[in-house]
Amino acid sequence: MGLIVAKFGGTSVASPERIQMVAKRLISIREAGNDVVAVVSAMGKTTDELVGLAAALNDKPPAREMDRLLSTGEQVSMTLTAMAIESFGYRAMSFSGSQAGIETDTEHAKAKITLVHADRIKQALARGVIPVVAGFQGIDGRGDITTLGRGGSDTTAVAVAWGIGADACEIYSDVDGIYTADPRVVPHAHKLAAISYDDMLELSSAGAGVLQARAVEFARKYHVVIHARSSFSDAEGTLIKEADPSMEQAVISGIAHDTSEVKVTIRDVPDQSGVAAKVFSALASNSVNVDMIIQNISEKGHTDLTFTCPGADLPSAREVVERVLPRIHAREYAVDESIAKVSIVGTGMKSSPGVAAKAFSALADNNVNILLISTSPIRLSVVVSASQVELAVRCLHTAFGLDSDIVFEEKMLSAEELAAKENKGR
Amino acid sequence: MGLIVAKFGGTSVASPERIQMVAKRLISIREAGNDVVAVVSAMGKTTDELVGLAAALNDKPPAREMDRLLSTGEQVSMTLTAMAIESFGYRAMSFSGSQAGIETDTEHAKAKITLVHADRIKQALARGVIPVVAGFQGIDGRGDITTLGRGGSDTTAVAVAWGIGADACEIYSDVDGIYTADPRVVPHAHKLAAISYDDMLELSSAGAGVLQARAVEFARKYHVVIHARSSFSDAEGTLIKEADPSMEQAVISGIAHDTSEVKVTIRDVPDQSGVAAKVFSALASNSVNVDMIIQNISEKGHTDLTFTCPGADLPSAREVVERVLPRIHAREYAVDESIAKVSIVGTGMKSSPGVAAKAFSALADNNVNILLISTSPIRLSVVVSASQVELAVRCLHTAFGLDSDIVFEEKMLSAEELAAKENKGR
Repeated sequence: MGLIVAKFGGTSVASPERIQMVAKRLISIREAGNDVVAVVSAMGKTTDELVGLAAALNDKPPAREMDRLLSTGEQVSMTLTAMAIESFGYRAMSFSGSQAGIETDTEHAKAKITLVHADRIKQALARGVIPVVAGFQGIDGRGDITTLGRGGSDTTAVAVAWGIGADACEIYSDVDGIYTADPRVVPHAHKLAAISYDDMLELSSAGAGVLQARAVEFARKYHVVIHARSSFSDAEGTLIKEADPSMEQAVISGIAHDTSEVKVTIRDVPDQSGVAAKVFSALASNSVNVDMIIQNISEKGHTDLTFTCPGADLPSAREVVERVLPRIHAREYAVDESIAKVSIVGTGMKSSPGVAAKAFSALADNNVNILLISTSPIRLSVVVSASQVELAVRCLHTAFGLDSDIVFEEKMLSAEELAAKENKGR
Repeated sequence: MGLIVAKFGGTSVASPERIQMVAKRLISIREAGNDVVAVVSAMGKTTDELVGLAAALNDKPPAREMDRLLSTGEQVSMTLTAMAIESFGYRAMSFSGSQAGIETDTEHAKAKITLVHADRIKQALARGVIPVVAGFQGIDGRGDITTLGRGGSDTTAVAVAWGIGADACEIYSDVDGIYTADPRVVPHAHKLAAISYDDMLELSSAGAGVLQARAVEFARKYHVVIHARSSFSDAEGTLIKEADPSMEQAVISGIAHDTSEVKVTIRDVPDQSGVAAKVFSALASNSVNVDMIIQNISEKGHTDLTFTCPGADLPSAREVVERVLPRIHAREYAVDESIAKVSIVGTGMKSSPGVAAKAFSALADNNVNILLISTSPIRLSVVVSASQVELAVRCLHTAFGLDSDIVFEEKMLSAEELAAKENKGR
């Protein structure tokens, strides 16, 4: 007996047939004696299609209109999911972000949840109804619909779980948990039974696509346990929760890579105080999500300033940099779009000296050229050429002893077998 | 200088290219010195596609979910229209039914507007913004989205026009006004310069698809002048307004036909008081829109009870009738789906005796068999076999002197030429 939030991604609701499968799973959770609230993404490629329609009409669609447009995707899938549940003789009711009481700030396309008024959902549960909530969206103080950014449905699920005091927040997708690396790149990657919020947060921020970083942050802040699992099997997935002694004691939890970022270098910047502030406050106020920042050693009073940001933010970043260049008396800037970031993540790094040295040696032994380096207490990221990303991930995975005895395909067996083999593997 | 509401139907916003044309027309209204508010329907066949998705999941989708699903169609077209306007350098802002302050009762799929809080639209106008309102939808007292029924966008336009005190409510479609009959059936039909609310209401109720009857009713109640015109030309259309001496003085304004209804006959009903009440209150409480009701002459204490209703309501009607049959001690019922209703409409009928006789003669002369008859002070409707509908409309159009000298295709010239020829024609 529990109260469970179950979130399904776009692939899981891509067709009427898949929506029926989602409905059946929700009903089976219910039949197992639980109360359940569903959170759904938009069907398959709906969001991309809506973006395409907008692009046909306006190069820079107004953010308020864009959010309103995109929010219809989840509003379609939520009603269809509710209809499917009702067709099996159970009661269901859909809730848009606004109806579910998801209140946000006014930052369109990247809104942050400020409050969850879950009264209507609780009332529906009390009446025996299965509530189906539209992911990815909320409503701001002006009554306008906002969206939480791509992947924001995970955040909706965690926020709803917190708002109703759920026992678990199950996030269903086409992968069955969190792996030590992307199994498509590293066939010897293995699935983690559990991972701490901190490590998951670093992995998500570093490009592991399974869970949205903001969702993990929200879960950590409000102590919501996430269970990342597969829509297509009953295997146990990976629990994301507070670090505890039962978790694996490896130095490194996993390796993530991200090919979606670009590198921008501003050359010959005068080495004066206030220059970096000018650049990065201008970028921030234009909503460019700067990731890594590196300033090279100064030569003759001039230096190079390099940062990375999502490729999607590049047009805005170019505009800002071109506007700021004369104000900071810099000469020129260069963009490199063929880069990849590889990150090794693990809370164990704090107490294990030599992680960086080991990583750099492994990369050097394999002739991987490092373009940028950045570190946090539990993460080491290197930027390499996009052409070397798979090699870099594989050699680091091996160097840190993460390779499993068996390759990925063999593992899609059962949770028990997997756990046994994983324990043997280390 | 005026304040104009301009409503565009699904065909007018069916593609990004058409939406750009709508945006340009709105801008030209604005450039002519007016303030303008747009009301838009869903793009092309969107509503049908959404209905199809729902049907794939549930034979009888819950009405609340269905309304929520369908409302996304107009929410997409409103944002795209706003984006298109902005792309031409004008400011625009979309408003869903709820954001536009369209409050309704809770009757899903057939909601009635109870109040219009147009403050946000007025504020947008005051800031120089072109508001774009989603047609067809509102919000009920529980915060749930409702829809106004097919064609409900016309009603939205009239309600918004009333709410903001507009000077005119222009309803754009792929026909350029109100004709004396459907020009596809009667090539000699002619366009009316103006028509009274009463006649238009009867024509709309009788199947003339150009304007939704409820929109006309709303316009009559709140004295909103409607201008029905074409999206694809600048020709003047037809004004719908209070009857005044300037209007054409023909006995008959027009002839409408409707092939969407079905006929249900309950046989051998005991001729007792209360029987009809039982049948029709059951139908009403199941939201079956009964149109004509005819009770045949009683034979030996038994009678036949016949009614017509929209074909879409037939499944519900069957259910109700089957449930009620034993309670009224009736034997059986029959359904005829191959019928058509032909109606002649005109305020002038009140003061012109002999209209019915003339109509029946014309039909008899052409061997059209009349199945049912029903009348109002300004309308005479006959139900005929679907196979005879075109013949019936044409012979009545001729009999009442409505034929124009020129055929429909020739008329798509200019408003002036048309008016001149129409005046000559009578």
